[in-house]
Amino acid sequence: MATKRIGILTGGGDVPGLNSVIKAVVYRGSELDFEVTGIRRGWEGLTHVNIEDPQSRARYILPLNPANTRTIDRTGGTFLHTSRTNPAKMKAVPDFLKGKEFPRKENTKRGVTSEVYDVTSQVLKNLEALQLDNLIAIGGDDTLSYAARLDKEGFPVVCIPKTMDNDVRNTEYCIGFSTAITRATDAIERQRTTVGSHERVGIFRVFGRDAGHTALYTAYVSSIRCCIPEYKVNLEKLVELLLADKRTNPSNYCLLVLSEGAEWEGYKVREYGEPDAYGHRKKMSVAEDLSDEIKRRAGEETVVSDLTYDLRGGSPDFVDKLVATTYANMALDALTENKSGVMTAIVNGCFTLSEIPDPKLGPRRVDVPTMYNTDRYRPNYQAKNGLPIFLIRA
Amino acid sequence: MATKRIGILTGGGDVPGLNSVIKAVVYRGSELDFEVTGIRRGWEGLTHVNIEDPQSRARYILPLNPANTRTIDRTGGTFLHTSRTNPAKMKAVPDFLKGKEFPRKENTKRGVTSEVYDVTSQVLKNLEALQLDNLIAIGGDDTLSYAARLDKEGFPVVCIPKTMDNDVRNTEYCIGFSTAITRATDAIERQRTTVGSHERVGIFRVFGRDAGHTALYTAYVSSIRCCIPEYKVNLEKLVELLLADKRTNPSNYCLLVLSEGAEWEGYKVREYGEPDAYGHRKKMSVAEDLSDEIKRRAGEETVVSDLTYDLRGGSPDFVDKLVATTYANMALDALTENKSGVMTAIVNGCFTLSEIPDPKLGPRRVDVPTMYNTDRYRPNYQAKNGLPIFLIRA
Amino acid sequence: MATKRIGILTGGGDVPGLNSVIKAVVYRGSELDFEVTGIRRGWEGLTHVNIEDPQSRARYILPLNPANTRTIDRTGGTFLHTSRTNPAKMKAVPDFLKGKEFPRKENTKRGVTSEVYDVTSQVLKNLEALQLDNLIAIGGDDTLSYAARLDKEGFPVVCIPKTMDNDVRNTEYCIGFSTAITRATDAIERQRTTVGSHERVGIFRVFGRDAGHTALYTAYVSSIRCCIPEYKVNLEKLVELLLADKRTNPSNYCLLVLSEGAEWEGYKVREYGEPDAYGHRKKMSVAEDLSDEIKRRAGEETVVSDLTYDLRGGSPDFVDKLVATTYANMALDALTENKSGVMTAIVNGCFTLSEIPDPKLGPRRVDVPTMYNTDRYRPNYQAKNGLPIFLIRA
Amino acid sequence: MATKRIGILTGGGDVPGLNSVIKAVVYRGSELDFEVTGIRRGWEGLTHVNIEDPQSRARYILPLNPANTRTIDRTGGTFLHTSRTNPAKMKAVPDFLKGKEFPRKENTKRGVTSEVYDVTSQVLKNLEALQLDNLIAIGGDDTLSYAARLDKEGFPVVCIPKTMDNDVRNTEYCIGFSTAITRATDAIERQRTTVGSHERVGIFRVFGRDAGHTALYTAYVSSIRCCIPEYKVNLEKLVELLLADKRTNPSNYCLLVLSEGAEWEGYKVREYGEPDAYGHRKKMSVAEDLSDEIKRRAGEETVVSDLTYDLRGGSPDFVDKLVATTYANMALDALTENKSGVMTAIVNGCFTLSEIPDPKLGPRRVDVPTMYNTDRYRPNYQAKNGLPIFLIRA
Repeated sequence: MATKRIGILTGGGDVPGLNSVIKAVVYRGSELDFEVTGIRRGWEGLTHVNIEDPQSRARYILPLNPANTRTIDRTGGTFLHTSRTNPAKMKAVPDFLKGKEFPRKENTKRGVTSEVYDVTSQVLKNLEALQLDNLIAIGGDDTLSYAARLDKEGFPVVCIPKTMDNDVRNTEYCIGFSTAITRATDAIERQRTTVGSHERVGIFRVFGRDAGHTALYTAYVSSIRCCIPEYKVNLEKLVELLLADKRTNPSNYCLLVLSEGAEWEGYKVREYGEPDAYGHRKKMSVAEDLSDEIKRRAGEETVVSDLTYDLRGGSPDFVDKLVATTYANMALDALTENKSGVMTAIVNGCFTLSEIPDPKLGPRRVDVPTMYNTDRYRPNYQAKNGLPIFLIRA
Repeated sequence: MATKRIGILTGGGDVPGLNSVIKAVVYRGSELDFEVTGIRRGWEGLTHVNIEDPQSRARYILPLNPANTRTIDRTGGTFLHTSRTNPAKMKAVPDFLKGKEFPRKENTKRGVTSEVYDVTSQVLKNLEALQLDNLIAIGGDDTLSYAARLDKEGFPVVCIPKTMDNDVRNTEYCIGFSTAITRATDAIERQRTTVGSHERVGIFRVFGRDAGHTALYTAYVSSIRCCIPEYKVNLEKLVELLLADKRTNPSNYCLLVLSEGAEWEGYKVREYGEPDAYGHRKKMSVAEDLSDEIKRRAGEETVVSDLTYDLRGGSPDFVDKLVATTYANMALDALTENKSGVMTAIVNGCFTLSEIPDPKLGPRRVDVPTMYNTDRYRPNYQAKNGLPIFLIRA
Repeated sequence: MATKRIGILTGGGDVPGLNSVIKAVVYRGSELDFEVTGIRRGWEGLTHVNIEDPQSRARYILPLNPANTRTIDRTGGTFLHTSRTNPAKMKAVPDFLKGKEFPRKENTKRGVTSEVYDVTSQVLKNLEALQLDNLIAIGGDDTLSYAARLDKEGFPVVCIPKTMDNDVRNTEYCIGFSTAITRATDAIERQRTTVGSHERVGIFRVFGRDAGHTALYTAYVSSIRCCIPEYKVNLEKLVELLLADKRTNPSNYCLLVLSEGAEWEGYKVREYGEPDAYGHRKKMSVAEDLSDEIKRRAGEETVVSDLTYDLRGGSPDFVDKLVATTYANMALDALTENKSGVMTAIVNGCFTLSEIPDPKLGPRRVDVPTMYNTDRYRPNYQAKNGLPIFLIRA
Repeated sequence: MATKRIGILTGGGDVPGLNSVIKAVVYRGSELDFEVTGIRRGWEGLTHVNIEDPQSRARYILPLNPANTRTIDRTGGTFLHTSRTNPAKMKAVPDFLKGKEFPRKENTKRGVTSEVYDVTSQVLKNLEALQLDNLIAIGGDDTLSYAARLDKEGFPVVCIPKTMDNDVRNTEYCIGFSTAITRATDAIERQRTTVGSHERVGIFRVFGRDAGHTALYTAYVSSIRCCIPEYKVNLEKLVELLLADKRTNPSNYCLLVLSEGAEWEGYKVREYGEPDAYGHRKKMSVAEDLSDEIKRRAGEETVVSDLTYDLRGGSPDFVDKLVATTYANMALDALTENKSGVMTAIVNGCFTLSEIPDPKLGPRRVDVPTMYNTDRYRPNYQAKNGLPIFLIRA
C-alpha cells in the first residue's frame, strides 16, 4: 500500500517545465512509495469532476506512473492540461451541482463586479472521495492563492511557482522564466536581420501586464532598450534615444523590447474584450501605438513583432529543467516531512520553502531604482555585487 | 584590369539566402576576374545616388570583395539593404534631381490612381557613370519587373528570384521559401504545446496575400488544415472539420494555418492604411476574424499566432543555401556567356534560365485542382508521380 | 473489410523522416481503406517472427492505425525499430527454425567468405500467415536489394529509398540526406567559434564510406574544402591549400570536411573490428590520420570533430518531411494501381517510380568531373544550368 | 584623457560567453571613460609581444571600442583568441628575448619534469610599456593562477572565471557551464532517436578530466545515468543497471553520460600523446572502453557518441549571457573601487567578489555524498532545500 496519496495539478497559463515537474514527482514518488494522481485541467478537475460518473472521472482524474509520464519531459506545456478556474470565485457552478447550495459573494476585479460562488466544500469532498492525502499545485498567483485557501481549510498543499513573467512574490524564480527569455532572445536574433535589411526601428512586444521582468532581462542580455510597466518613459526622449541608436549603428537600425503593460507619460493602455475568470481583460498593443507615434514624430518605419505564444512554447531550457526537477523533489521532501502550506522557492539565490504569497499584494514588480536605468531606458548594469543570481530580491 | 564590372542589388522584402547569393557572386566573380559593385538599398541606389557627392556615393555604392563579404552568409537578410523603390513608378524624384524633366504617367493600383515619374534615364546615366557592364538584380515580382525594363532599355541584367511566398512565375523556386516553411513548422511545433495544454483551436497566420504556397506547404509537412487565397472555404464546414479534429485528438486541440489573404465564402478581407510604393495596402488579420467566428459559432477558445517576420528572419536553411549559391553561379555563367534579360530558375525540377516574368500576369498561384483538397481543406496528397520536387509547375 | 493489407518495414541505419513515411502510409492508407501492419526490426521481423507464439508476434508485428502513429512524425528515427538482417544471407537461422532446411551458399564480402542461409521460404510463409497483400520496404541498398528479391519471388513490394549518404542508384534523393547536411552545417557553424578562437585547422568527419555526397554538399553550402572517397587528393597540396586559407582568414583558422572514406595518394584507409551482416568493417578515422599529418608537416594544431550520429538524429528538416510524405503517398498510389517491384524516386528533378537498383552496381558515387574541383579540393560551382535541383543525375 | 587604461585577455579553452564579457567591458568602460585594450592570445600576448615591432604589436594588441565589439556577442568563442601560455612556466622564451636572463626552475606535472622559464619580468615591462593600469583576465584555473601571481607582483588584476567544467574553486559558477549542459542535452535529445531505433545502449562522453559537473548536470536534467571522475563505479553493477533500464524502456534502449575522467573499480584511464604546456596529456576514451566491456559482458551493442567540441561551440545561452554581462560589470565596478586580486563569483547563490583560488588545491570536484547516488549511479535528487541554485557550494 502506498505510504501517501498525492494529487498534482497545473493551473493558469502553461510554461515549458511543467511536464518536468510532473515526471519528477511521479518518478521520485514511486521510489518513496507514494501514489500520484493527476488532477486534469487545474482546479476545474476538483470542481467539475463527478466522482460517480466514470466519464467525468476519466475526464478529470488520471492515475500517474512512470510508464505514462516517461517521455512527457521532452515537450513543453502540461500534459495534464490547465485552466483558469478558481473554485472560490466561480461564475457558475457545474451542471451536476446545480441545486446544491454554495456561498456567494460579490467579486470586483478591475472595476467589474459580479456574483461568484465558492465551491470549496465540493473541492474538499472530492479530495476526500479521491482518497488524497496531499496536493501539489503548480501555478502562478491565481492558482497559488487558492492553494493557500485550501491549505487553510485543512487540506495540506505544497505549491510550486510557475510563470513566464517571474512575478510571483516570495521567490526569485518561477518555472518558465528562463525559457521565455531564451525564446525572446532567439527570436530577436533571428528577426534582427530583417529589421536591419530594411533599416527600421524594431519593436518587440512580450508578455508582462504588470511586471516587466521578461522585457527587462531580454534587454539585459541583448544590449537593447526596453520599456516596462513599472516606469513611464517620456515618449519624446525614447524616440530620440532610438533614433540615436539607429544613426550610430552602421547597419542603420535599432531595437526595443517592451512589455505589453508598458506605458509612456500621458499614455493609457487601452483594454478590450471580456474579462476572464480572474477579471483580466485584453489590452490593446502598446507596440502598435508606439509604432504609430514613431512614424508620426520621426517619419521612421518600424517592424512590430509580437513574441507572444512563442515564449511559452517548446521544451524547457537548462535552467527550467534544473529548477523544475529540484522544485518537484523539494515538494516531495516537504510532504515527507509533513510540511504544507509552503511554496518551493529560490530566495537569496538558494532553494528554500517560502510562504505562499498573499494575493492582495499583487505581482512582484521590477525594482526600478536598482534594475532600470530611467535615463537611458534600458537595464541598469552596475552594482550587482551582492545580488542573487537572477538579480532579483524575493 | 577586370574583365567585367558587375553591379548587384537586392530589392523588396528580405529573405534568408540573399547574403549567400551576394557572397557567392563576389567569390566566384573574383576567380573570373570580375569586379563586383554593391548597389545599396535596391533600385533606390540607382535613382538616388548622386555620383558627384562622396557622401551619397558612400550611402549607395559599396565595392565588394572577399574580405568584406567573407562572413555575410552566416546571417539572413541582405547586408546591402533593400527598398521597394520602382524607378519607373516614383511618386517623387530625389531632391537633387528636382528640376530635371522625367516622363510622367498615371498609375492605378488596387483602385488608387496617382501620378508617377519614370526616372529610368537617370538610372541608365548612373549605371554608365559607375562604369558597370552588367547588373544582377535579386528580388520578387516588383523588383524583377523593373530589371526586365532596364534590360529592354539595353542595359544587360540577369535576375535571381527571391520571395518567401514562392509566387514568382517562370520558376518553381524562389530563394527564401524553404526557410519560411522551416521557420513556420518550427514555430508550430513549439507552440503546439501551449495550444494543447489549453485545449484550444490553434490558428497560425503566415504571409501570402495572393498566393498560398507558404500556408499550403506548412500544412503539407505538418499534417494540419490550411486555408489559402486561391480557394474560398465554407466557414461552417471549416469549423466542423476543426471541431472534429479536436474531438479526435486525445489531447483535445487542433491546428490550422492560413495565408493572410485567405477568405471564406461571403468574407471579404478588409484592408487598412496607406498603399505602399507598389499600391499594396495592409490587410486586416483574417486569423482574428476567424477566431471570432469560431468563438461565436462553436464557443471554442482559440490561440491566434501571427508568424510574420520570424519566417524571414535568421539564417537560410540547406535548400536556400544550395539554391542561392547555385543561382549566383548560374548568373555569373550567364554573364560570361553574354546572356541577359534572363532569370535563374528551377523549371521541371532542373536549374535553368527562364524569361523574366511578365508582371501583368500577377503572382504564380497555387494550382487548386492538383494541390488543394477542397473537401477536406488541407493539401492534396495523391497523384504526385511526375511532379517536380516542389510539386509546383512553373 | 480492408481492400488491401499492407506491411511496412524499415531496414538499415535510421534517418530522420522514416516516421513521417510510416505515419503518412497509415493515415492515407486509412482513407483508402487499407489495413497497415508494421513489421518491426526490418527484415528480422519476417525471419524471426514465430507466428504461433504471441510473445514473438508482439515483438515483431504491430498493427498500425492513426491513434498509434499520430505523434511519431515529430521525432526522428523509426518507431518500428530497424536491423541489418538480410534474409538471403543469414549467418544463422533463428532458434525456432533450427532443424528446418534452408538453401546455403558461400558469401564473400570484402575478402571474407562465410556460409550463409537463405530463409526466403520462411519469409514468404510468414507474409502469407500475416495475410499481407503487399509490402512497403524503406531502406538503403542492402534493404532494397532483398525487397527486389522478394518481389521477384512473387510477393509485390514497393520500395522507398533512405540513406544519409544519398548513394542509392536510380534516384537523386534518399530520405535523410537533407537533414544530414542541415545537422552538419549547424555543427560546423557552432564549432567554427572554437576553431577560430584557438586558430586551428578544423577537420570535420562525416559518414560516407564509398560516396562523398554528404561531405561534398556540406562543403558546397559552407564554402569550405572537402575530401571525398571518389578522389584521392595530394596530401602536400591539401595541406598547402589549408594553410593558405588559414593565412588569408583574418581570424586565422580554416575548415575542412571529409568523408570517412576519403583518402589521399598513398594512403589506405585502415579497417578494424568484425564485419557486420553485410560484410562491412569499421574504418580507422581518416580525420585523426590527417590531423597527425598536418601537425607533422606544418606544425599546425587541429581540432578534429566527428559529426557521426548527430547527422542522423533529431527530427527531419523541411525537405525530408516533404519527400517522405510524398514518397509514402506515391507508394500507396503505386499499390492502388497494382504496381510493384518499383522504388519511389526523384529522377531529373521530378518524382517518379524507378527500378529497384541492382546491388551489384554498388552505391551511386559523386560524379567527380562535374561536381568536384580537383584543383582546389572543394565542390565545383560552375555549369549547373540544366542539372536537377540536387545537382545529381540518378 | 581616459580615467583608467584597462587590458583584457582570455586564456585557456574558449567557451560561449567570452565575447559577451569583452563587449560588456568595452561598452560599460566607454561610459566610465576607461580605455580598453585587448591583449590577444591570452598571456602569450604579454610574453610574446615585441612592443617596438608594429607587426608584433598588431598581432598581440588590439585597442577596443564599441565599433569593433558591437556584434561580437552574437557568436561564441573569443574574438581576442586564446592560448594556454603560462608566463611563469614557459618551456622556451620567445625568439626576440633570446639572450635575456629569466629565472628557471624545474616543473613537475603528472610525473613529467621539465625546466621552465619565468618571464614575469618581461610581462610587467610590457604592461608598463602599454601604459595599462589594470588587467581583466578571463580564464580557468591555469589562467587565473598566473593572474594571482601578477597581482602579487603589484600589477592589479581582476579575474573572471570561465570553464565548461565549472570546476574553478571559490565560485559556484563559471561562464560556459550552462551552455555546455544546454548543448549536451540537445545532442542527447537528438541522438536518442537513433539509439532507440537500433535498440542500443547509448554512451555519451563529455569533457571533465577531474570534475564531473558537466556529466552530472546533464544527467540531472535528462533523467539518465552518469559516471564521474569523483566516484569509481562497479562495472558489473553499472552494466546490470543499464540493462535493467533497457528492458524497462518500451523502446528498448538506455542512455548513460560519462565524463572523460570517469573510471570503474580496477580501471585506470589510459593516457597518450605529449603533455601540453600545463602538463596535461590526452586520455584514451573511457566511453570506447566501456562499450567494449558492455559488448563482452552482456552482448549488447552500443552507440558511443563523443560530445566534445560541440559543448563549447555556438552562442551562449541565457544564463551564460546573464552571468557574463554581470561579471563584466562587476569587474569594472571593482576596478572603479580600486579593488584587485579578486575574482567575480557566485557564492551561496549571490554575486560576489572572491579570492582567486589557490591552484594547489586543484579543481573543485563534485561533492559525492550530496550530489551523486552511489547506489544508482545517477544524480542525487533529494535534500536540495537550502542549496544555492546550482546545487553547488563554492
